Amino acid sequence: MRTRAAVALAAGKPLEIMEVELEGPKKGEVLIEIKATGVCHTDEFTRSGDDPEGLFPSILGHEGAGIVLEVGEGVTTLEPGDHVIPLYTPECRECHACLSGKTNLCTAIRGTQGQGLMPDGTTRFKMLDGTPIFHYMGCSTFANHTVMPEIALAKVRKDAPFESICYIGCGVTTGIGAVINTAGVEIGSTAAVFGLGGIGLNVIQGLRMAGADKIIGVDLNDDKEAMARKFGMTDFVNPSKLEGQTVTEAIVELTKTEKDAFGGVDYSFDATGNVKVMRDALECSHRGWGVSVIIGVAPAGAEISTRPFQLVTGRVWKGTAFGGAKGRTDVPKIVDWYMDGKVEIDEMITHKMPLEEINKAFDLMHSGESIRSVVVY
Amino acid sequence: MRTRAAVALAAGKPLEIMEVELEGPKKGEVLIEIKATGVCHTDEFTRSGDDPEGLFPSILGHEGAGIVLEVGEGVTTLEPGDHVIPLYTPECRECHACLSGKTNLCTAIRGTQGQGLMPDGTTRFKMLDGTPIFHYMGCSTFANHTVMPEIALAKVRKDAPFESICYIGCGVTTGIGAVINTAGVEIGSTAAVFGLGGIGLNVIQGLRMAGADKIIGVDLNDDKEAMARKFGMTDFVNPSKLEGQTVTEAIVELTKTEKDAFGGVDYSFDATGNVKVMRDALECSHRGWGVSVIIGVAPAGAEISTRPFQLVTGRVWKGTAFGGAKGRTDVPKIVDWYMDGKVEIDEMITHKMPLEEINKAFDLMHSGESIRSVVVY
Ligand SMILES: [Zn+2]
Ligand SMILES: [Zn+2]
Ligand SMILES: [Zn+2]
Ligand SMILES: [Zn+2]
Repeated sequence: MRTRAAVALAAGKPLEIMEVELEGPKKGEVLIEIKATGVCHTDEFTRSGDDPEGLFPSILGHEGAGIVLEVGEGVTTLEPGDHVIPLYTPECRECHACLSGKTNLCTAIRGTQGQGLMPDGTTRFKMLDGTPIFHYMGCSTFANHTVMPEIALAKVRKDAPFESICYIGCGVTTGIGAVINTAGVEIGSTAAVFGLGGIGLNVIQGLRMAGADKIIGVDLNDDKEAMARKFGMTDFVNPSKLEGQTVTEAIVELTKTEKDAFGGVDYSFDATGNVKVMRDALECSHRGWGVSVIIGVAPAGAEISTRPFQLVTGRVWKGTAFGGAKGRTDVPKIVDWYMDGKVEIDEMITHKMPLEEINKAFDLMHSGESIRSVVVY
Repeated sequence: MRTRAAVALAAGKPLEIMEVELEGPKKGEVLIEIKATGVCHTDEFTRSGDDPEGLFPSILGHEGAGIVLEVGEGVTTLEPGDHVIPLYTPECRECHACLSGKTNLCTAIRGTQGQGLMPDGTTRFKMLDGTPIFHYMGCSTFANHTVMPEIALAKVRKDAPFESICYIGCGVTTGIGAVINTAGVEIGSTAAVFGLGGIGLNVIQGLRMAGADKIIGVDLNDDKEAMARKFGMTDFVNPSKLEGQTVTEAIVELTKTEKDAFGGVDYSFDATGNVKVMRDALECSHRGWGVSVIIGVAPAGAEISTRPFQLVTGRVWKGTAFGGAKGRTDVPKIVDWYMDGKVEIDEMITHKMPLEEINKAFDLMHSGESIRSVVVY
């Protein structure tokens, strides 16, 4: 069949909207009509050419929602008409990783997915001249139709609006999951969130859900404060406005109490991708038990560092991918939470546009005007 | 009273054996006759002058065992005749840290202890000319008698030999505790231990107790292999003997199985204090769930580093002090384990000497001849 897609033809170029050929689903695969897709920083990381593993031509996009149109041989858990959210982290429930019970990093199709291919080693997309087009993060939601493995699709309720729940395919789950799955925040905790963009806001609402007492947001841009407070932030620190104090010292000061002369947050989260900020996040966490979680994606080759003393005195340094969420199991729950009003999404989707205007989404991201742009097909 | 002590008069000098004045126990303090003390790398770190916070003159030593001779006002949990192990990490059971249930890093007397003082801000030791002598890590077990706060003494059974259980005051608990308390190793795990000195051997026996399936030891010295195998090591890697393979690659290779094409250990431990080795230890741990624990003390100013990708893909970087053990609670249990034959100690105590020969213990440490030297009073 033919479908319409925004194709990344080469690094650093705007996406081009065009008709492409899409082959039907093979064994274990599913054809989906994408109804909406968010535009995420990771798409931009690859589009811009910063991603050393970026492949071209490719169809980017990994934060979608849609409807199953057709299932391939052997598909048993989905049928035409089902509503689904594509998963760039699949959940096969059979590999060593899935069966470990300790991680969401399913390895079933990791090799081919990283090469922009379906599990059989080929692509389903082609240009009209026959040139193969690479898949992206196993999803390629910047096409109106896409083919994905069954194990990479979360089946969700049919009454949830695509334009909102698509964001659960990446940003929402990453932020909330980092709090719930990776950090394991308890009621009454204190926390610091570095970077108040889309991920940071979702970390903040995750912390509110988890019952954190003090939620300190950190951002260089004062304009981020008001929105972050709406999602549950209790204190704001702008490191560029501190006088004679590091951001770590400011956070320690904010968390000292009569009972606790040390200060420091129980949990901290980096949602900036800046390795210096990752260090600050670790070092403002509490001696003895502070847990610091890296969410942001750092530039290629960048390294984090600290004195080992920080860890020997009880801090723990962790990271999270897709919020530690097992997609087929956890994503439908988060859709329920959204429908129940426990999770806010609509306030973060600041811009909507048709596929033809997708390049505007990248412009809005760069100018800092958007929290999240969503393409509605 | 007067007692005999090995005094560190200045950085880099041999200890000097001399008579010193010891004031009796004040409120909340206890006078102890030290019967035996291990000589640990941390003592040498300070003696040598490498420790930027080292104070002189001081009486070093923090790995002892002895008998209570006299208790000060208000002491309720100890009485003369009790056998005790001094704790450089106290357990007050009342401070914010102790009550958190999340750490062993009691803060009750941290400030004064770090300054070489008793909690009231003074020293109990003096030279015969009246010059105050600093306490060390709150213990000063290189004196035949010492005064310590009640909260820094673990009461242990009376049938346990001082010359063996003194090692539980630091090395044994640090190694076993890193496995049990900090890492939380489960039955069937795989593990790598970097550095097969005294701490490394105790990590290995901790792993054996915890039921680990594969225990890989790493050391540059082939002579360490035989002893480590006695304590439970199943595989040995000498990084200097690897051809065309990094130590990380070698460990990954050793842990790949039919079910697990990735490889990597579930738990790794650095017992070297070398920040490059700490990185290897992290990076040889398993994608998705590997936990790497820093035990070794790094040189002042040294930093650890890695790509954040290592953490984002599921590895956890931690550290441990005194093996995460709550001394008054956990140390008596480890003494029981020794008496029950669950923990081996005697095989690691390769040298014993009177206080007069304590400087030999440092020579043996440097030449690599000893695992542990114990001074018997
Ligand atoms: Zn994303
Ligand atoms: Zn799997
Ligand atoms: Zn020690
Ligand atoms: Zn305490």
